[in-house]
Amino acid sequence: MNFNPVELIIKKKTGKSLSFSELKYFIESYLNNKLPEYQMASLLMAINLQGMEIKEIQTLTEIYIESGKRIKFPSNYRTIDKHSTGGVGDKISIVLAPIIAACEGKIPMISGRGLGHTGGTLDKLESIPGFRTNLSEEQFRKLVDEIGFSIIGQSDELIPADRRIYALRGVTGTVDSLSLITASIMSKKIAEGAQNLVIDLKVGLGAFIKNIETANELADLLIKTGEKFGQRVSVIISNMNSPLGEYAGNALEIRECIEYLKGKNIPDIDLLTKTLASEMLLLSDITSNKIEAETMINNSIKNRTALDSFRKFVKAQGGNPEVCDDPSILPQAEYEIPIISDNEGWVESIDTQNIGYALIDIGAGRKALDSKLNYASGTYLPKKIGNHVRKGEQIGKVFCDEEECGKEVAKKILGSYKISNIEVKPQKLIIKVIRYNN
Amino acid sequence: MNFNPVELIIKKKTGKSLSFSELKYFIESYLNNKLPEYQMASLLMAINLQGMEIKEIQTLTEIYIESGKRIKFPSNYRTIDKHSTGGVGDKISIVLAPIIAACEGKIPMISGRGLGHTGGTLDKLESIPGFRTNLSEEQFRKLVDEIGFSIIGQSDELIPADRRIYALRGVTGTVDSLSLITASIMSKKIAEGAQNLVIDLKVGLGAFIKNIETANELADLLIKTGEKFGQRVSVIISNMNSPLGEYAGNALEIRECIEYLKGKNIPDIDLLTKTLASEMLLLSDITSNKIEAETMINNSIKNRTALDSFRKFVKAQGGNPEVCDDPSILPQAEYEIPIISDNEGWVESIDTQNIGYALIDIGAGRKALDSKLNYASGTYLPKKIGNHVRKGEQIGKVFCDEEECGKEVAKKILGSYKISNIEVKPQKLIIKVIRYNN
Repeated sequence: MNFNPVELIIKKKTGKSLSFSELKYFIESYLNNKLPEYQMASLLMAINLQGMEIKEIQTLTEIYIESGKRIKFPSNYRTIDKHSTGGVGDKISIVLAPIIAACEGKIPMISGRGLGHTGGTLDKLESIPGFRTNLSEEQFRKLVDEIGFSIIGQSDELIPADRRIYALRGVTGTVDSLSLITASIMSKKIAEGAQNLVIDLKVGLGAFIKNIETANELADLLIKTGEKFGQRVSVIISNMNSPLGEYAGNALEIRECIEYLKGKNIPDIDLLTKTLASEMLLLSDITSNKIEAETMINNSIKNRTALDSFRKFVKAQGGNPEVCDDPSILPQAEYEIPIISDNEGWVESIDTQNIGYALIDIGAGRKALDSKLNYASGTYLPKKIGNHVRKGEQIGKVFCDEEECGKEVAKKILGSYKISNIEVKPQKLIIKVIRYNN
Repeated sequence: MNFNPVELIIKKKTGKSLSFSELKYFIESYLNNKLPEYQMASLLMAINLQGMEIKEIQTLTEIYIESGKRIKFPSNYRTIDKHSTGGVGDKISIVLAPIIAACEGKIPMISGRGLGHTGGTLDKLESIPGFRTNLSEEQFRKLVDEIGFSIIGQSDELIPADRRIYALRGVTGTVDSLSLITASIMSKKIAEGAQNLVIDLKVGLGAFIKNIETANELADLLIKTGEKFGQRVSVIISNMNSPLGEYAGNALEIRECIEYLKGKNIPDIDLLTKTLASEMLLLSDITSNKIEAETMINNSIKNRTALDSFRKFVKAQGGNPEVCDDPSILPQAEYEIPIISDNEGWVESIDTQNIGYALIDIGAGRKALDSKLNYASGTYLPKKIGNHVRKGEQIGKVFCDEEECGKEVAKKILGSYKISNIEVKPQKLIIKVIRYNN
């Protein structure tokens, strides 16, 4: 069918819904370079400001999926994936996937790179010498089959519509549209073949979503869109007001993950990982008993079966598996700059987003998609909201290869902590669990 | 100054105002091809949906003006122009300018072409054999000086910002933004050197503005933007629910204009022309007495001084002035298709916009800026809302060079008339006069 693109833009601009054939025409014409970028940009801004009905979002997701290949696994595989909306120090996928694999789950994970103030799972994994994230579909399937999981990047064949529109959103100021976020996440997670999905929806100063109302709205869109495609979706709304774990930085986080899988107690990583893992086992019917799920998860760490899964995974994707025994083979930074508190009191708030942006200066994060990373650099920040600090106490470290720049970053990080002289309560990490029930 | 275009788009998207330097950076970068079309498209849609403060609109107008040349006439010239927001059968400029010139006014008129369902003054004039609208600035000034008026098209030197953004608005669904309409109209009318301006703001089914609230809002923006640049602006809000005059079509309207200037009574053309002309004479201080203004206007027609002005103008712009005595030198259509009423009653409504679009099929209007026109084609439609029609009565004609197509157009036009069996009152043509007083 043939439509007038301007009429479709005006339809959306005036708050009306676009039909399947209208959206398909618009997006297909765009992908075939028959519709110019400026018309897509105009439509994206109209969608951003006028929103979409849930039916429209489902339609958009369908068109995204149909724009490329769709991987399917046998239904007895009980494939399950986890998606995080992104935060600072968020390394959960890297410990979660081997745990689930050790519990007989199958995780076909297509992941992303860091952009803006948030890190990316692919970047973190690539800090392991030799590690590759650009496997073929065949290799990907084989790993999911044999090891239980694989983590790769998006290929040219999966969801080309999302890839091009995602890039255009970044340069047209239309990133925060809940409709477009939903279609983008869900199309990838459906096309990769996950039958079940647990979403870690982060809210707070260090997340893209700043308030709980928006988080609830997005959770609802994600769950309803999953339903439409027969994918069971649960959402965990979690707090992103403090960095997650004690380290942020690519190689530093890999080391922290390995320590966690070896049994080190890191409270926030532990709580979030186990909450997500438990939901994943329940959702994919590996067990229907929450206590049993928790036992399976605890055992996978205690018996080091999760660590074994991780070791196999690193080796299968070209990385050096000795990293599990000797973390010193990871890139090491030349300097460690201490961060010294100039105040006494309780941590009231942490401008986590600001910390994420500061880390870009030492190469731990990306400004643009083609920015070069310094895998060794990063930060150690064990203090959470509600923790007490003394004046002159070392509250953290910056790892870097350029001393002066590192000192500047240390200053920026220190400035991101607000210290109160009245006692501050710690914040709850898990805000809400929206469990799939159908 | 250097800005991040994405941040500026997001600023506008979230309803904030952009400053002079921010808007200037964005528009200048766009004109220098340093900022891509898709970012301008995204900003235009954000402006369309979030609106602009009056100060922002004035700033935008200033940046538009500064993007090109600005023509200035000596202040004792009392230059005055008229702008219409566009309708069907709107030939008023072509009779108004010679009347004002005959009353000693100076009208430097830069006019437009028809697009969509509305006609354009330049197209109508170019139906006169030999007539040229692409004069140099020097010729334009000379004609305003010697004859009292000239009507030309926009050159490359005047308001390049508007020219490029206007074209982009057409293809990105952002035409109906009051902020962008105001900056577009006012920048042109200020840059052409008009010290005074009367705007015919059309409302109704045949106009871009469909309701009186929007018309009032736009009138306010136009007047306040004029004030900012020392231009005195009055606005006449007029009814566009019936086509204006009895003819629509380029050469047909020129013939109707000449007949009017020779004294033929065409009630709606007469009322609107005299209302606008009277405001123009008062606004430009040619007289401060309304009765005197009306007498001057009536005399210019009675004494044929307005017709003489028109004749000189046609000759000066390369056209054949004999058109004033022998309209048969205008292009003539081969066929005249009668439009026969299939109903008895009173005209309740006329889908004037639909008629405008139907006329495109026989070449009287344009689909795209490069569409070729058929100057001879058009329609004769003397019935207005409230007029009585009998079943079988000929209520109009279609003039065309292709009989079959003309018959289809006649059907479409007939279908645009809604006939009621209850008596319908005629509608007021002049809805409101908002007179400049400062």
